Amino acid sequence: MDDLLLHFSANHSPLLPVSFLERAAHAFGDKVSIVYGPVSFSWRQTHQRCLRLASALTQLGLSPAHTVAALAPNIPALYELHFAVPMAGAVLSALNFNLDAATLAIILEKLEPKFIFVDYEYVDVILTALQLLSEKMGKRPLLVLIQELDQAATLVENDLASATADIVKYSDLLDMGETDFEMVKPKNEGDPISVNFTSGSTGEPKGVLYSHRAAYLKSLASVKLYDMVSAPVFLWTVDMFRCNGWCCTWAMAALGGTSICLRNVSARVMFDSIVLHNATHLCGGPAVLNMIADAPASERKPLPCKVHLIIAGVLPMSQVLKVEGLGFTVSHAYGMTEVLGPALVRPWRPYQLNSNSSYEHKKVKFPEGLLGDRVIEEVDIKEPETMKSVQRDGKTMGEVMFRGNTLMSGYLKDPKATQEAFKDGWYRTRDLGLFHPNGVIQLKDRAKDIIVSGGEIISTLEVEAVLLSHPKVLEAAVVGKRDEYLKEKPCAFVKLKEGYGAMSCEEIVKFCEEQLPDFMVPRTVVFGELPVNSTGKVQKFTLRVKANAMHSISLENGCQRS
Amino acid sequence: MDDLLLHFSANHSPLLPVSFLERAAHAFGDKVSIVYGPVSFSWRQTHQRCLRLASALTQLGLSPAHTVAALAPNIPALYELHFAVPMAGAVLSALNFNLDAATLAIILEKLEPKFIFVDYEYVDVILTALQLLSEKMGKRPLLVLIQELDQAATLVENDLASATADIVKYSDLLDMGETDFEMVKPKNEGDPISVNFTSGSTGEPKGVLYSHRAAYLKSLASVKLYDMVSAPVFLWTVDMFRCNGWCCTWAMAALGGTSICLRNVSARVMFDSIVLHNATHLCGGPAVLNMIADAPASERKPLPCKVHLIIAGVLPMSQVLKVEGLGFTVSHAYGMTEVLGPALVRPWRPYQLNSNSSYEHKKVKFPEGLLGDRVIEEVDIKEPETMKSVQRDGKTMGEVMFRGNTLMSGYLKDPKATQEAFKDGWYRTRDLGLFHPNGVIQLKDRAKDIIVSGGEIISTLEVEAVLLSHPKVLEAAVVGKRDEYLKEKPCAFVKLKEGYGAMSCEEIVKFCEEQLPDFMVPRTVVFGELPVNSTGKVQKFTLRVKANAMHSISLENGCQRS
Repeated sequence: MDDLLLHFSANHSPLLPVSFLERAAHAFGDKVSIVYGPVSFSWRQTHQRCLRLASALTQLGLSPAHTVAALAPNIPALYELHFAVPMAGAVLSALNFNLDAATLAIILEKLEPKFIFVDYEYVDVILTALQLLSEKMGKRPLLVLIQELDQAATLVENDLASATADIVKYSDLLDMGETDFEMVKPKNEGDPISVNFTSGSTGEPKGVLYSHRAAYLKSLASVKLYDMVSAPVFLWTVDMFRCNGWCCTWAMAALGGTSICLRNVSARVMFDSIVLHNATHLCGGPAVLNMIADAPASERKPLPCKVHLIIAGVLPMSQVLKVEGLGFTVSHAYGMTEVLGPALVRPWRPYQLNSNSSYEHKKVKFPEGLLGDRVIEEVDIKEPETMKSVQRDGKTMGEVMFRGNTLMSGYLKDPKATQEAFKDGWYRTRDLGLFHPNGVIQLKDRAKDIIVSGGEIISTLEVEAVLLSHPKVLEAAVVGKRDEYLKEKPCAFVKLKEGYGAMSCEEIVKFCEEQLPDFMVPRTVVFGELPVNSTGKVQKFTLRVKANAMHSISLENGCQRS
Repeated sequence: MDDLLLHFSANHSPLLPVSFLERAAHAFGDKVSIVYGPVSFSWRQTHQRCLRLASALTQLGLSPAHTVAALAPNIPALYELHFAVPMAGAVLSALNFNLDAATLAIILEKLEPKFIFVDYEYVDVILTALQLLSEKMGKRPLLVLIQELDQAATLVENDLASATADIVKYSDLLDMGETDFEMVKPKNEGDPISVNFTSGSTGEPKGVLYSHRAAYLKSLASVKLYDMVSAPVFLWTVDMFRCNGWCCTWAMAALGGTSICLRNVSARVMFDSIVLHNATHLCGGPAVLNMIADAPASERKPLPCKVHLIIAGVLPMSQVLKVEGLGFTVSHAYGMTEVLGPALVRPWRPYQLNSNSSYEHKKVKFPEGLLGDRVIEEVDIKEPETMKSVQRDGKTMGEVMFRGNTLMSGYLKDPKATQEAFKDGWYRTRDLGLFHPNGVIQLKDRAKDIIVSGGEIISTLEVEAVLLSHPKVLEAAVVGKRDEYLKEKPCAFVKLKEGYGAMSCEEIVKFCEEQLPDFMVPRTVVFGELPVNSTGKVQKFTLRVKANAMHSISLENGCQRS
């Protein structure tokens, strides 16, 4: 049968997300690709704008395998760069616009971009970052200023006139580019299309490399993951700099969907956009969920169609139930930058713990942990030393691991970190979880966050889920506080909702006692703001330092339970 | 940037349709995979049955790259073989059960299968074919008898007792197989998963090879092509032997859909199944459309949900309108075995010809030609000698060509035919078509069927579409009849519907004159049965011979127009 293996250029072409756009321009050229306030484009226009951009970039010296940075909110230009940059053969890095200049400087030094696209709102921070870098960098990147589509941002231009950087306008690039530009096709579908930097909550941000193949297959998988129909209307509430918008940038072209771009996200904007455009899908973290759940009645509107809300992170049951009450369909997602966004997604439902659970004696329903039935890759839970799969008995914990095609290629210029991320052909998430006998995965905690207390293992996520289910609690984080006898004791940091009244320590402890076994109930409760990093994640290492520094008696704004 | 290219077994695995089944067993193990009369399976059960089958086949000597033939209607066993055979590393060939023993013998000689799975209805024809082959074949293949799931077909067993072939029962294979069988993974996703034989209307049937990669990507594309939601209920009206059921065998596992298997298709069975199972999708040729359109009122039922009907071939507008009137959504598909089934699909709609058309002066709406806006691969229309793309002007004809990943690898043991199928990196369909200025493709005709008459080019498909739009016409085929002065003249063969009354030649010619320019109106009309090949395609070469043999005056059952 060896003679069966025939290969022709006709029947083998690299899997490229850019091909989705070419097809979209052909197959539904007149359909709306992007809406942004009063502006909208058709797929034919988006294709032509991307060709022009790629052409202009090439004219200005961009070569295959160069990198291009972009710092912008979810506006059409950032969407277009997801196609235009790979069309020129280069690698896109959409940067987190919440970063400070010092962190941006670290990233830019590693990335060495030939171009930096910057939205007018973020010019200052980029100029400061470049200033910080000026000694270290050789040739300065060319800055491309993105202004609003329907306004002349003369103020910014004046600012820039005094800047030392070379600057060109986005609109000028579009004017100088040609639509007959021939796309630079990578020879190998394993070549990189983008770099996404992790938040770097501990240590320097790492640049996670996505291949064309991985991005292509993840985009196609979005149909299954996010329960998408053939032409979704996607409301951009998840940042495009986060795993390339969970790969929905490319997926919308694959499906011929419509992107509703938003500069700023708020409850009012979300409800208005859903009603105006019949949006079918929106994604994001718990902040998106909370905005909808807590929207004042004056900002809410009845949904005109079925709206899917896909949320990653810990989902407070009370908030989910509120949002479902408004008519949304909620799915729960679990993933990370290294697996190109969500890898496990599951329709949210209250979670009835089985008899193996430590909560057996408590007759309450818990929100489920992080589980997935819309898994797209191979997933297993393994003992990380021996790499043996754990028993699927609903109690044996291990590390969640993935393998498949929709994983990162590795970390940019960091072979050591890359080596450590993989083991024996699996990607190590460093998250702990367990398999229920029916094959459902329950995520317990980050390996480094788990609390070991008097021989018992405590998932901080589970304690947090209980805290978050209290109607007065907005945010909660639990960490281990060192203890002479028990090794660690759970310590809770809680931020209360505004307008729901105060709460005493006794009240929250009693609430936990009703729902958790004794060893899991927080011994210390501290009220106040939670420290978060640039991507909005709670910085548990900061809280651990704080918890351990606290004297066992005096507490300014909290309480202790013996 | 060369150091970006990092590859780990964790983040690169071959694209295998079998992985859809593994994921389905994990992600929706309890959901229904297959319904067949009173029998149904869950995805977990289907996975385990396929593992058992693969294990048993391996125990019985099946090795990677061996071939396995199957002759059966759309029953669960044939569905299972689509996974079990590749799990054992082998290549599946689902054969057309309408073939006669002589044609089957030719195919089996080329295929050299190690196993032949045969449904109890088709035992005779297989035994005859093997008899014909007995001298030519070395080691005889092992026959596997598939009986009905809930009956003992003792009659067949008695028949077989006298046969010379080695025979084993499907149910015995399931019993002897182990569920801990470890799948044989191909090293290369370009390795073959299946062989689909063309009808061979001219010359010997050709074995079209599908790679794992092509089948995987086509399955994912079905979401877009057939407008499938995340869990479709697929009513099996398209034969699984036809491009592996348009790749919907594998696609259902990818989507976690439910397959409603049918041994025989009829209007009553279709309506009953749609109502009983809330079927969402059914596919096939015009026969499926006609069955639904012409179903007597007593067999029709109101649809319980949105039902998508995807039909390949020439669609008579009157029939489509009837079916739409019953609530079905109709899409029109164009493709062929070599592109793994439909490659262009488009929601059906009456087609308003533009001003460039030769029908300009006729104020009628035509059913559209074969067009596609749900295209999944690159398509172009080229002048086949120079390979230059034709003008997209709505009139310049050329040959439709494809390239991309969802194309055949080549023809089994036929390097010459493979070579001829491709040219300069494109697959040649041998179909003529044109591009409208808006990018829509209109298919005109098979290159070999087109009629050249007095310097005018006539698409037989367009004349047939007009004939089929007459309420009394069931089938129609138009061919060129040699003519001394005009080179060719159109000659129509027409089969009338039963129960709609007779029709005179004058009536049909007048009908054509009202809607077609004079040179396209058939000069000869012949009433009667149309000769079809094993897959139901009209044999135009037979009709051409017949047309040219007819004297210009005497016609038994037809008429001529000067």
